Amino acid sequence: MRTSRGLLILLAAVLIAAMSGVVGAAEDPLPSWNDSKAKQAIVDFVKRVTMEGGSEFVRPAERIATFDNDGTLWAEQPMYFQFSFALDRVKALAPQHPEWKTKEPFASLLKGDLKGALAGGERALLEVMAVSHTGMTTEEFEQIVKDWLLTARHPRFKRPYNELVYQPMLELLAYLRANGFKPFIVSGGGVEFMRAWVEKAYGIPPEQVVGSMGKQKFELRDGKPVLVKLPAIDFVDDKEGKSIGIQKFIGRRPIAAFGNSDGDLQMLQWITTRPGPSLGLIVHHTDAEREWGYDRKSPIGKLDKALDEATAKGWTVVDMKRDWKRIFPIE
Amino acid sequence: MRTSRGLLILLAAVLIAAMSGVVGAAEDPLPSWNDSKAKQAIVDFVKRVTMEGGSEFVRPAERIATFDNDGTLWAEQPMYFQFSFALDRVKALAPQHPEWKTKEPFASLLKGDLKGALAGGERALLEVMAVSHTGMTTEEFEQIVKDWLLTARHPRFKRPYNELVYQPMLELLAYLRANGFKPFIVSGGGVEFMRAWVEKAYGIPPEQVVGSMGKQKFELRDGKPVLVKLPAIDFVDDKEGKSIGIQKFIGRRPIAAFGNSDGDLQMLQWITTRPGPSLGLIVHHTDAEREWGYDRKSPIGKLDKALDEATAKGWTVVDMKRDWKRIFPIE
Repeated sequence: MRTSRGLLILLAAVLIAAMSGVVGAAEDPLPSWNDSKAKQAIVDFVKRVTMEGGSEFVRPAERIATFDNDGTLWAEQPMYFQFSFALDRVKALAPQHPEWKTKEPFASLLKGDLKGALAGGERALLEVMAVSHTGMTTEEFEQIVKDWLLTARHPRFKRPYNELVYQPMLELLAYLRANGFKPFIVSGGGVEFMRAWVEKAYGIPPEQVVGSMGKQKFELRDGKPVLVKLPAIDFVDDKEGKSIGIQKFIGRRPIAAFGNSDGDLQMLQWITTRPGPSLGLIVHHTDAEREWGYDRKSPIGKLDKALDEATAKGWTVVDMKRDWKRIFPIE
Repeated sequence: MRTSRGLLILLAAVLIAAMSGVVGAAEDPLPSWNDSKAKQAIVDFVKRVTMEGGSEFVRPAERIATFDNDGTLWAEQPMYFQFSFALDRVKALAPQHPEWKTKEPFASLLKGDLKGALAGGERALLEVMAVSHTGMTTEEFEQIVKDWLLTARHPRFKRPYNELVYQPMLELLAYLRANGFKPFIVSGGGVEFMRAWVEKAYGIPPEQVVGSMGKQKFELRDGKPVLVKLPAIDFVDDKEGKSIGIQKFIGRRPIAAFGNSDGDLQMLQWITTRPGPSLGLIVHHTDAEREWGYDRKSPIGKLDKALDEATAKGWTVVDMKRDWKRIFPIE
């Protein structure tokens, strides 16, 4: 029994090795990426950290990679998609709230006057988030987000929002996974908003999503527990919060991080100063034709300090127009 | 090329299937468990949820299992081991704090008068936790915990604390992993205290550890980021907090949960009321000779309401004395 088992294991190992050789030689793992410095930096890094016996080898358990979501894995213009969701929820809930007709920020929102609604500043924004994101159970909320994705359409591309993910980043996720990496989302977006759809879109399971979150309350309803979403902020996963979020939720410093804005600066600082190899990468939105062109002056996805630091520190910068053959899977 | 690749994949698949058959038939995956209702319940559950095509099949991505730590995976008497760590830290730091000689709770602690020290109640406890767990960077703290485990010895067993893990639970973890489960720790203990040693002890990586935590601050020191542990509580992962912690950190309802005290009650309620199959299990400390005997009246690991509910709801209860052949790996 022992001998035949050993032989079987050996044979299987040889065959698996042969298979990976065949696959590796035949296919470009990043077909939507033009041959560029960025692509080369990614491929070089993956080779270095996966080469057994090499000086920069990183064992699989430590191959954590973190990805910002808005503007890095999917689009974020003309406004964060989660905010579009919130506005649509306000419209959907309006019939149950006749008082909103005269109450700001809802009155302006319902008239389509976004600027007027946001004149109330942070307080107005929090009110919109509270009515759209709290008061229901976590399971009810998940269903609301899923339903929204089925019917809502992006104003420019007329497609469901979850189709506006970046094809080159999907390939990058698959390439990293094939090389033993464990990808996490680390986003300023709401964790429960993302968990409702990211597994299907990116193959990233809920337990690998770190995001901003509100407080919750445990309740027994007819003897059955539910978690109710409360209108109180618990954690903001942005800027310094991204490094703290990584420490709180992952507990291990990633070896690669991918972002696109100043909100990702501290995450990139945190991972690129680890002892040992690291890859810090910024997606620069340079393609106004196929997507959007924006950086230093954009109110959404502002990329200013992080772009300067990328240059100074030698982080990899992706020029979307030049480096990506395709933007979305739908093209 | 295509044909030979297909053939290789097919051959490898057949061999792997053959191998798992050979291994499965030959070995008991839970050798330290006596044949008992508890063992049968575990094995039955795993068979049901892994049987493809069966009515209770659960896809691997959803096979989340959560484990309490203190009293479930390792011992917790005569006091939580993390509290022993805190007391040892107070002693180690005392030479730098001459003022502690006259300041409570430190003065009593340093004289070995634990009862006197804790007369100050929660405030005294928080002070001890603050000086032992905060003020340093996350990386410094990890090293302190690792160093402590190398030298500290359990008062009864005279062994390093991380050797007082339960052999039957190590086997259970391995058995679940072999069947496609992803085990998480969900403990009232400090997340960073646990992450320093649980990967080596249980094979559970840091990103699969949920626990209580303090607030942190991101700081640049000489241009390099550090995270500083602050003396402010951020999240208490106990009782209702365990269900909330699962939702915050994992984002998917587990199908199996393992605990030993009333602190695990809400976690067990949360997972056993999910739609579909679930396994709720309680470790009952019934073995005063080989370990400790305690339940309803114990100040540490009190098991009262959860024991009643286990009976009422048909959760599995492990009787340590009767069901476990061995307690610790060191025996």
